[in-house]
Amino acid sequence: MNVQFINPFLDSFLNVIGTMATITLTPGKPMLKEDELAKGDVSGLIGMVGEQAKGSLSLTFEKRLALKVMENMLGEAPNSIDEEVTDMVGELTNMVSGGAKKSLGEQGFEFDMATPVVVAGPEHHISHVSSGKKIIIPFNSLYGRAFIEICFEE
Amino acid sequence: MNVQFINPFLDSFLNVIGTMATITLTPGKPMLKEDELAKGDVSGLIGMVGEQAKGSLSLTFEKRLALKVMENMLGEAPNSIDEEVTDMVGELTNMVSGGAKKSLGEQGFEFDMATPVVVAGPEHHISHVSSGKKIIIPFNSLYGRAFIEICFEE
Repeated sequence: MNVQFINPFLDSFLNVIGTMATITLTPGKPMLKEDELAKGDVSGLIGMVGEQAKGSLSLTFEKRLALKVMENMLGEAPNSIDEEVTDMVGELTNMVSGGAKKSLGEQGFEFDMATPVVVAGPEHHISHVSSGKKIIIPFNSLYGRAFIEICFEE
Repeated sequence: MNVQFINPFLDSFLNVIGTMATITLTPGKPMLKEDELAKGDVSGLIGMVGEQAKGSLSLTFEKRLALKVMENMLGEAPNSIDEEVTDMVGELTNMVSGGAKKSLGEQGFEFDMATPVVVAGPEHHISHVSSGKKIIIPFNSLYGRAFIEICFEE
């Protein structure tokens, strides 16, 4: 996977969470996912299909951070990951992938997105099944961690 | 979502599990997913993008059934959902969606598939985020339950 694919997702995630929830995420170093695992409590996943490549994106949040994003966006948040929270994570997934799609399209790399799927469950982990490289980017915040994982195969 | 989209996924799932793992799954009635939730311990998810529609598919297995599929396919199985099991669920997801794609293509409904993503975690649940109808099909077996969920939006 070309490194030029990574930054649009990273930038779009920082932008969406910063703008919508006024939460500053601090990105760690992007890593090739080998033994590294993103663990979290709620994840948004979306498939991407283009002429040049196809792949998948996941955004994984620890529960505390997901609830804080919800609180900042809507003024209040439930105590647990309920349907309102999974809907919000689905929308964030659309927004992050949409932002990256726009930016990558300007670089001549076009793809279409499938519809998002959200997974909720304590400490689940995600495996992207692909022959392509898997990139994981950890993010820290005052309210817990998040992870982006991106995988494209050509 | 047109009902003609459902049977190819159902048939493909029965066929893949029957052929690869010699396990007979008994399908329940397909239902519109409203309050109904598929809960399981390992799920394969894949995005689909076509000119007429886009959507998502998930296959969710209870742990005992996933390990039995593994044992029947490979002669042995671990005690927990490890990387070998998630890889197998990713492959099954490719096979089931590939079978349905072939069958739907013969009916003039073409789509491309993204790469699959597998989620592992005890009793997680899945939400397909889409304006389209969500269909859930439960399956019973001697070794536990599985669920297909399909969602397309036009």
